[in-house]
Amino acid sequence: MESIRDKVAIVGMGCTKFGERWDMGVGDLLVEAAYEAFKDAGIEPKDVQAAWLGTVFSGISGITLAPLGLQYIPITRVENMCATGSEALRAASYAVAAGVVDVALAIGVEKLKDTGVTGVKGPGLVGDNPDGTAGIAPGYSAPASFAYLASRYFSEYKMKPEDGRKLLAEIAVKNHYNGSLNPKAHFSNLITVEQAMKAPIVAYPLALFDCCGVSDGAAAAIVTRADMAKNFRPDPIYIKALSLAVGARQGAMVQDYDFVHLEENVRASRNAYADAGIKDPRKEISMAEVHDCFTVHEMIVYEDLGFAKRGRAKEDIEAGTFTLKGDLPVNTDGGLKCFGHPLGASGLRMMYEVYHQLRGKAGPRQVKNPRLGLTHNLGGNAGTGIATVFIVGNEKS
Amino acid sequence: MESIRDKVAIVGMGCTKFGERWDMGVGDLLVEAAYEAFKDAGIEPKDVQAAWLGTVFSGISGITLAPLGLQYIPITRVENMCATGSEALRAASYAVAAGVVDVALAIGVEKLKDTGVTGVKGPGLVGDNPDGTAGIAPGYSAPASFAYLASRYFSEYKMKPEDGRKLLAEIAVKNHYNGSLNPKAHFSNLITVEQAMKAPIVAYPLALFDCCGVSDGAAAAIVTRADMAKNFRPDPIYIKALSLAVGARQGAMVQDYDFVHLEENVRASRNAYADAGIKDPRKEISMAEVHDCFTVHEMIVYEDLGFAKRGRAKEDIEAGTFTLKGDLPVNTDGGLKCFGHPLGASGLRMMYEVYHQLRGKAGPRQVKNPRLGLTHNLGGNAGTGIATVFIVGNEKS
Repeated sequence: MESIRDKVAIVGMGCTKFGERWDMGVGDLLVEAAYEAFKDAGIEPKDVQAAWLGTVFSGISGITLAPLGLQYIPITRVENMCATGSEALRAASYAVAAGVVDVALAIGVEKLKDTGVTGVKGPGLVGDNPDGTAGIAPGYSAPASFAYLASRYFSEYKMKPEDGRKLLAEIAVKNHYNGSLNPKAHFSNLITVEQAMKAPIVAYPLALFDCCGVSDGAAAAIVTRADMAKNFRPDPIYIKALSLAVGARQGAMVQDYDFVHLEENVRASRNAYADAGIKDPRKEISMAEVHDCFTVHEMIVYEDLGFAKRGRAKEDIEAGTFTLKGDLPVNTDGGLKCFGHPLGASGLRMMYEVYHQLRGKAGPRQVKNPRLGLTHNLGGNAGTGIATVFIVGNEKS
Repeated sequence: MESIRDKVAIVGMGCTKFGERWDMGVGDLLVEAAYEAFKDAGIEPKDVQAAWLGTVFSGISGITLAPLGLQYIPITRVENMCATGSEALRAASYAVAAGVVDVALAIGVEKLKDTGVTGVKGPGLVGDNPDGTAGIAPGYSAPASFAYLASRYFSEYKMKPEDGRKLLAEIAVKNHYNGSLNPKAHFSNLITVEQAMKAPIVAYPLALFDCCGVSDGAAAAIVTRADMAKNFRPDPIYIKALSLAVGARQGAMVQDYDFVHLEENVRASRNAYADAGIKDPRKEISMAEVHDCFTVHEMIVYEDLGFAKRGRAKEDIEAGTFTLKGDLPVNTDGGLKCFGHPLGASGLRMMYEVYHQLRGKAGPRQVKNPRLGLTHNLGGNAGTGIATVFIVGNEKS
């Protein structure tokens, strides 16, 4: 096996405003994201040689991409729950690295606001149901599943629940601040720690502002061979590593699971660091977009990815390490918390922010002299996760 | 762009019996198919470095593969309606050709008998519905959609409907004969032309025996780099070409569509022939597994793939060209008609037969000295199809 390092580049990206897009159908969102990416890369739809579409609930098969009119090329749907957007980019990257496609479109979409797909409705999720389908367990909800992490983390590291909740509130406040600087974010309101602490409880100890947005949206990337990238633009970004680890336990809640880390996050990030030649991620990664479906997971990701020491994320949160002006800014665009979380689009939305940051084009959210950016996109649950990590840079090694 | 020719090999395959598998869940079928493939390739589950799972209705995300216990490796779900099984093999092939994976599992599964997913039930299919989801049009049924092809073909080529129906019956009789030699097929009963002609009409002019089985089943392939293949077995098969063409019209029934050919079939096969260096498929292809969801589509595929002249499939059907002892045997394992059609598994099931034929291991169905085999797997509909073509050979060029 070899690494994908410096074989593949991203030369254009697009992203719709996320949020309540009552006026837009799935096709409208796809067109909006794709045409921004085409224009950004300086290409026409006819230049796309193959496409990968990521969506969980908003389409079946590549024909969902019909509104783009990409006639008679290969178009494939990929899906891996909330990591679906990253999977579209991963599939396109492999085809380009294999040399069988020179210009690929990776695109993801989800309409969630008007379909009610937030809990048990819609097609099933995990497991092997009595009726022969693989379906979600009745009564499952994402907040309740991730709430376990918070309670256990507080207990393991001897925090009073209210102190722990305050720490999570700090993460929400940071992401709301970043989101307030982002016109494409679902939520652009500033909040205070006090507001977050007093917000209605969703699944204790997680309250309203610990939970990410349920949103409509689409995002897209134009992927090419690294050696062709400068034909498209002077400032492409290069894929240094991409990694996926699926924690394929049968059912999320196994007896030996510690509920204070996700082994999938650890494996995916360590594999990516090895491929990218990164020894100290805390020092070498310039900025990161991570999967803050719930604030507690952003906190655990700090530790799982080596941004903070195990059990000591608190010190870094309190020191402001992950704020826009900190040593390692995280979720500079507002994250899932404020940008929103249209499942099939989120992984590509993360890359959209990194792409702009690495090229110095992130406006009021710009971090200083970034060199390497990271996206971390989780699917599934604590205990049965699908963790995808991309590392990208603005120079070829 | 370069061809994938001779970069990737298949070194092991597995396939469950297809049919009414009331006793087996999705996980059981996956385990049965995968372990046959592992054993056939002489590998252990731990040797699998990445996996792609194809399923339309029987799972969401790679976690559906949990019963195999492939912990912390990349596992991705791919989907392209009835071409989903071929997509799993295509994704694995690209990753191997990119050099990022040396040993990959491509696996597909579907449980259809106990979920009622044959018409409108289950998640939606094509289109951009008013509720923002991409869903099947109300009242859609596959037999009715493909029936248009038959009526129009008979008219275009000036056949009396009963003569046309007799021609289709000949295809069903051939596939039932082949299926009768195949212990893994859903249906193993012999039928006569008279029986097929007198069977209940499903969607005129298509009757019961013109329609493929609705089945449960799973199939799997172990994919490696071609230069490593003989480390696994002395007789691997090599991928000469793989091609996908999506006819991304918005909605199936457009005004300029002729209903006697599928442009997607033509494009996918011509691209594959070019990559494999095939000039005359009728002479160079030794045997083929094609997408006979309905007998009329097998007839049209003969023409679309260049096995028969346009409008003249009749001559070849009557000459027995596509029977086991004919010049170009098609659907030697019984096809979708008799082997059955568990959507996510079918593309891999086709390859399972070709793999055995090319290695001289197809038992009573063995064709003489095959050198090149073809699989053709369609998703979607006439007019909005997803056509996948693989060409494989038993020697490196």
